[in-house]
Amino acid sequence: MDTPQIGVVGMAVMGKNLALNIESRGNTVAIYNRTGSKTKKVVEDHPDKKLVPSYTVEDFVASLEKPRRIIMMVKAGKATDAVIGQLLPLLDKGDVLIDGGNTFFGDTMRRNAELDKSGINFIGMGVSGGELGALEGPSLMPGGQKEAYDLVAPILNQIAAKAEDGEPCVTYIGPNGAGHYVKMVHNGIEYGDMELIAESYNVMRNLVGMSVEEIADVFKEWSKGELSSYLIDITAEILTRKDDLGSDKPIVDLILDEAGNKGTGKWSSQSALELGVPQSVITESVYARYISAMKDERVAASKVLPKPVGNVQIDKQATIEMIRKALYFSKLMSYAQGFEQMRVASEHYDWNLQYGELAKIWRAGCIIRAQFLQNITDAYNKDPELKNLLFDDYFKDIARNYQEAVRDLVGLAVKAGVPVPGFSAAISYYDSYRAEVLPANLTQAQRDYFGAHTYNRTDREGVFHYTWYTEQ
Amino acid sequence: MDTPQIGVVGMAVMGKNLALNIESRGNTVAIYNRTGSKTKKVVEDHPDKKLVPSYTVEDFVASLEKPRRIIMMVKAGKATDAVIGQLLPLLDKGDVLIDGGNTFFGDTMRRNAELDKSGINFIGMGVSGGELGALEGPSLMPGGQKEAYDLVAPILNQIAAKAEDGEPCVTYIGPNGAGHYVKMVHNGIEYGDMELIAESYNVMRNLVGMSVEEIADVFKEWSKGELSSYLIDITAEILTRKDDLGSDKPIVDLILDEAGNKGTGKWSSQSALELGVPQSVITESVYARYISAMKDERVAASKVLPKPVGNVQIDKQATIEMIRKALYFSKLMSYAQGFEQMRVASEHYDWNLQYGELAKIWRAGCIIRAQFLQNITDAYNKDPELKNLLFDDYFKDIARNYQEAVRDLVGLAVKAGVPVPGFSAAISYYDSYRAEVLPANLTQAQRDYFGAHTYNRTDREGVFHYTWYTEQ
Repeated sequence: MDTPQIGVVGMAVMGKNLALNIESRGNTVAIYNRTGSKTKKVVEDHPDKKLVPSYTVEDFVASLEKPRRIIMMVKAGKATDAVIGQLLPLLDKGDVLIDGGNTFFGDTMRRNAELDKSGINFIGMGVSGGELGALEGPSLMPGGQKEAYDLVAPILNQIAAKAEDGEPCVTYIGPNGAGHYVKMVHNGIEYGDMELIAESYNVMRNLVGMSVEEIADVFKEWSKGELSSYLIDITAEILTRKDDLGSDKPIVDLILDEAGNKGTGKWSSQSALELGVPQSVITESVYARYISAMKDERVAASKVLPKPVGNVQIDKQATIEMIRKALYFSKLMSYAQGFEQMRVASEHYDWNLQYGELAKIWRAGCIIRAQFLQNITDAYNKDPELKNLLFDDYFKDIARNYQEAVRDLVGLAVKAGVPVPGFSAAISYYDSYRAEVLPANLTQAQRDYFGAHTYNRTDREGVFHYTWYTEQ
Repeated sequence: MDTPQIGVVGMAVMGKNLALNIESRGNTVAIYNRTGSKTKKVVEDHPDKKLVPSYTVEDFVASLEKPRRIIMMVKAGKATDAVIGQLLPLLDKGDVLIDGGNTFFGDTMRRNAELDKSGINFIGMGVSGGELGALEGPSLMPGGQKEAYDLVAPILNQIAAKAEDGEPCVTYIGPNGAGHYVKMVHNGIEYGDMELIAESYNVMRNLVGMSVEEIADVFKEWSKGELSSYLIDITAEILTRKDDLGSDKPIVDLILDEAGNKGTGKWSSQSALELGVPQSVITESVYARYISAMKDERVAASKVLPKPVGNVQIDKQATIEMIRKALYFSKLMSYAQGFEQMRVASEHYDWNLQYGELAKIWRAGCIIRAQFLQNITDAYNKDPELKNLLFDDYFKDIARNYQEAVRDLVGLAVKAGVPVPGFSAAISYYDSYRAEVLPANLTQAQRDYFGAHTYNRTDREGVFHYTWYTEQ
């Protein structure tokens, strides 16, 4: 076998699949895992693959071609620091260490700076696509030293998913934490997409009164149109599946309504709050998961908190189309917020993000892959300085043509007591963003009243304070 | 003059007013400011007060009765650490250092632990009420060593605001960062109250088409009922005020619609996200301030983003009453979320917060003071283990009687394009919280599909994974 061109540390499913992916493109891959039995099993399960196992970190590092290229696929956090600590004494200047975990971007910034002192290149790389994506072609978001990226670009281009036009779903994102930041926002957007789909399903089920089978057909239909995306596809698929433990019920009806989370959506909202970006659709999606997890409280509350009394008249076909438009409109608002967040972060952290490229590498491989991403790339190609996607003609036209649907749907759902936090946040954002005047003049007057926080005026420059009262 | 019983560091307006407040209760107060001229001016402006100025930290510390009691009123952050660093070598075991700034609770936890090593007691104390509150009686939220609290309690009881029943608005909140945490949530709730008032004003103005004078009358009327509160009072007051620079316009029409923030609302939302608590009303309030600050983008967007086309029929008197109910309902949801956040934080950080006591000390002095807080105290008196305020009869009854109003108002405002992010978040929260089943079963199915995240079932115990597809 050749000397391995690259090594992978961590043989859990993501690391194993990524190693197999790299190998499948004609590379020899060194593999290592803290627990050697896992490494052994991978080699035994794949006897005909060019995998070079090592059972000590020393052997692993020694087995690699120089400059060394190592991808860590270990649990984000302390485990990552531990592996770095083991590898560092064995590495040479110019080696490239890649963290492919779901790491908080702030940690990546810190590690990049620390390792840079020893001349070690450190790339924080977002990997999206789940287990299957890792194996067959993920979307990759690497950030770090540009010269280090160039050293690994040939392999990353091989293993990344390919968009319909054949372009690999990987690009240099930017320095230090940029890759993991963009992956974090990607995941936040994923939370938003999932919540909007969940609300659409819930409205069909509980407002329109449709069966799971009927709803599956609607999602199948939607997946042929502008909503076409991986998440819509798997939703249609999920809704057709029956219980695998014997009953003839749809499996979705047997799954407990508690959604977990791994923290990336939360980080995304916390960062938006930090940077001053209104990112309400994603945040409501994170909160929706939190409320879902409060199952005992909800069951208790459902028994004592009064329902609405009003009647809502529903036209089934019209409402389904209303939901489709509301879903697409709200998705656009969520992406507008997510891309505004990346713009502000790019300016704040000095990353020089290329927004059109980001949408491009999300067209395949990753969880939010969708036809619609091409519209975002097009928008930034037309105007790389675009402040917010809502200023693009495509977005504007959807807003024009779909806003009545989301307004009517929110009205109906709120009247009927079916929760639509995502749809509501989307239309509130749209109406706030297009408001020449918001009631923040009153808010600022209050702040000046009780805290002497001063205010600006609409009719002249300067900072003013009003004498609201005289101190006794 | 007596030996000063207490000292105040920092002679900006909050520190000065707090020192004058303490002095006015019969105490002698040592004062110190980094820039001596400020100290000198305070003494010159108040020649007949028992204020003992010092111009070095050494003299200041030496002037105090032992065990020393020192309140720092300096800018939160580095300035606080700098002052602590200067004072620490001069203090003795058992002295009590109080930080009365708007400090992040995590910093207070760190400082409390660090100073504790030297035997110095450190209290992080939330101070609410603005400048006038500091002078005449603020609401105080001290957290730290209980024995240190006992040493300063007599003075804190003197200077705090008094509720209608004569009780001082101060209590021992809990260990280390508890006081600053509770102050942070107080401020978050304040953001929520202010946003809901702003939305009410905006709906009256832009949906009902009322004049500023008419709206002022409505707030004046509301301040006599269950909405009675400081913020409603000052809103009525603000709306009656004319331009102070010569025109005859209402001043609110000349104040630029950009609301600033000092970060406490943001921290509150970030902490809710960290702890897994859905705190959507406050978060939307923070985001509303952020959108307000994007004035240039909004003005540009207002020229190109389409308005809704639908017509909305309004009955003026009915809509005003609808707004009143929506405001009160949404306020209750915001407090339910805020108190749930404090419950989870208390369990997480082991603070043993007394929720009824917190509502009690907010009845006077602070910005969110309101008649309604008595209902919260009553709720926790009836059931100290209350999981969420919505389970209390008073809250349940308001929910029952006011929910139709908020549903109808959100429908009208959304249809008309008047942004109501706070009202929408409130009703979405209500409908999610009282939902026995949420569509999170679909969300979790998706997570299991693309990430093998597993799920629980409704019909049996255990952790399950569905074979959605077979790997090729």
